[in-house]
Amino acid sequence: MSKPTQFSIESRDGMARSGALATRRGMIETPVFMPVGTAGSVKGIRFEELEGDDLDAKIILGNTYHLWLRPGLETIRECGGLHKFIGWQRPILTDSGGFQVWSLGELRKITEEGTEFRSHVDGSLRFLSPEVSMEVQAALGSDIAMIFDECAPGEADRETARRSMELTLRWAKRSRARFDQLQAEGADSGKLPAGNDLSGAQALFGIVQGATHHDLRRESLARTVEIGFDGYAIGGLSVGEEKPVMWDVLSRLTPEMPEEYPRYLMGVGTPEDLVEGVSLGIDMFDCVLPTRNGRNGQAFTSLGKLNIKNAQWTSDDRPLDDTCECAVCRRHTRAYLRHLYLAGEMLASILLTHHNLAFFLDTLRRVRQAIRSGKFTEFRREFTESINSGVV
Amino acid sequence: MSKPTQFSIESRDGMARSGALATRRGMIETPVFMPVGTAGSVKGIRFEELEGDDLDAKIILGNTYHLWLRPGLETIRECGGLHKFIGWQRPILTDSGGFQVWSLGELRKITEEGTEFRSHVDGSLRFLSPEVSMEVQAALGSDIAMIFDECAPGEADRETARRSMELTLRWAKRSRARFDQLQAEGADSGKLPAGNDLSGAQALFGIVQGATHHDLRRESLARTVEIGFDGYAIGGLSVGEEKPVMWDVLSRLTPEMPEEYPRYLMGVGTPEDLVEGVSLGIDMFDCVLPTRNGRNGQAFTSLGKLNIKNAQWTSDDRPLDDTCECAVCRRHTRAYLRHLYLAGEMLASILLTHHNLAFFLDTLRRVRQAIRSGKFTEFRREFTESINSGVV
Repeated sequence: MSKPTQFSIESRDGMARSGALATRRGMIETPVFMPVGTAGSVKGIRFEELEGDDLDAKIILGNTYHLWLRPGLETIRECGGLHKFIGWQRPILTDSGGFQVWSLGELRKITEEGTEFRSHVDGSLRFLSPEVSMEVQAALGSDIAMIFDECAPGEADRETARRSMELTLRWAKRSRARFDQLQAEGADSGKLPAGNDLSGAQALFGIVQGATHHDLRRESLARTVEIGFDGYAIGGLSVGEEKPVMWDVLSRLTPEMPEEYPRYLMGVGTPEDLVEGVSLGIDMFDCVLPTRNGRNGQAFTSLGKLNIKNAQWTSDDRPLDDTCECAVCRRHTRAYLRHLYLAGEMLASILLTHHNLAFFLDTLRRVRQAIRSGKFTEFRREFTESINSGVV
Repeated sequence: MSKPTQFSIESRDGMARSGALATRRGMIETPVFMPVGTAGSVKGIRFEELEGDDLDAKIILGNTYHLWLRPGLETIRECGGLHKFIGWQRPILTDSGGFQVWSLGELRKITEEGTEFRSHVDGSLRFLSPEVSMEVQAALGSDIAMIFDECAPGEADRETARRSMELTLRWAKRSRARFDQLQAEGADSGKLPAGNDLSGAQALFGIVQGATHHDLRRESLARTVEIGFDGYAIGGLSVGEEKPVMWDVLSRLTPEMPEEYPRYLMGVGTPEDLVEGVSLGIDMFDCVLPTRNGRNGQAFTSLGKLNIKNAQWTSDDRPLDDTCECAVCRRHTRAYLRHLYLAGEMLASILLTHHNLAFFLDTLRRVRQAIRSGKFTEFRREFTESINSGVV
């Protein structure tokens, strides 16, 4: 029987692996970075730019929580699903809304059934559950859907973490059941005809939780795999714990993850984090850092971070990054970008976002090349040395 | 002796004329619309988009006032002039700052010598005069500079209007003198080698004032032409007077303007205004409407204006304008643009700005074609009927 996705590993270098994830809307070479398109827009950038040679983003992420609240399901259904609504024909992964509602803190109430919260858009009382999340993601018609999970704080004690993990596992089963039912009912607005060994159906990824407790992570993984998904994500990291703790959790967890499925580290991270994550066997990443920090005047470069506001760039005619070949670095100087930022020009955000996404996407392009040519370890050392050199 | 620019009329249809303005940085087909790049950025749009096939802006406008205050002359000089600073190699026209400081109202003091005002950037006391304006424009190295003028309110009485016109004429002479001196000194940072019958020097345009008084306008024109410039602008219109009054002034003025020089109607206007202006013999326009209104959710279309916020577009899968071939209309729906606007996404401003500029620029492209094929009158009637049809 054909599947919604096909994942194949093409090269390895230690634990790092490069591969190909075939989805119903196109091939994704891994490791891959997914720009975050929260409300149906990757903030500050046009889709033409995302598709351009210097970025060439193969997949973007959409937030179920945001899209459900606005424009809402009815509008997106009437407009033929998320791809058609926003005008993007490459693959989309949607998260489940679990992390967003969890992040609301005291503004939400979590029960066995699901999560109750007030909409930030209109103050209305809303209820998100595994079933509702699957219904929303089916209406969105994303290519990869995520189970509705509960996150525990980075430093959660064992008891809290276990409770959260058990809840996530029960929600994972309910997600799987409702997802399968919706697929059978034809509710997936992005459904495509089967072909090329793919079913044309939406894929569903499970999420491993368990905070920083190795045994819980291990148990969460085993029981999630037992339910059975098209890929496995690691949630609940980069949520307050120290970085070394995160790497410790990951380094023990990934060797036990099934080889033949893509592994997605949710919400991570800096360029260094991506390279570190790859070294531990991660295939997929998403993060708001390139877009959000771009809007706040921060550029990521091969020589580290650069604050465009700094007076030292006033008349500096160098690009943000001498080694970067993005459209912004080919055309504009630090002096100009600083001027735009200080003048409050929207173009500052637009150009910094473009460069940052180019840098993140290019970093993973280089990572894939390095793995394929068996030089990942060397690449990683040089990349890390350069980015920490402090000479930007 | 070769000139800074060469203007030739290629076709006529009544008073409407299509022509070619050769500048040191490229050929500009007229009638032409110039997007406004206030502070070194046409707000909300990348230069690549301005250069793209669907916009293909041949010249943009820069504001001397804004660029002088920030980033300031020293920075722009160190960065090699405005073109190099902002990364745009097509022609740039700079205004003189006269209109900007006049617009400050009670915040500025106008004397024979010039205008004193407080900087909106840092509150410092600044002084702008014909000489200073020419120095700033030489440092910017724009391809076309404007004389430093004084504007009178649209409804200024004869005495006020005459006083203002006489001052502008004295300032025009001082502008001309200082401009020529600066050219001789080599202060023009955009200077290019002579070639193709062009001197490679900066061009200078005069400005006709006189409010709504025909005799003053006529006198202003004659005395401005006597000083001698590379083109003639009409200032002090669209500053509060009624539209019919503006057309009346223009229809009596343009027949007396020298045929062999480009005529520039400053700060005008809506798409209908551009077509009307062309019918009266105008060659060049600039206006912030497409960019400013785009940021405020208003789209200009062939069927009139469209407010993207309206609930009627909630699930409307049509483009902004069915007849528009811009990248935004080819890809995105009214439903999506409305969603972006309501969600506060920057992309709403970006896309509406792109479409509006495309519509303005395409309107003038069609105007030029119509004139060349002797069908301008027909074009004008159909264009006006369509835009006033109220069926958007």
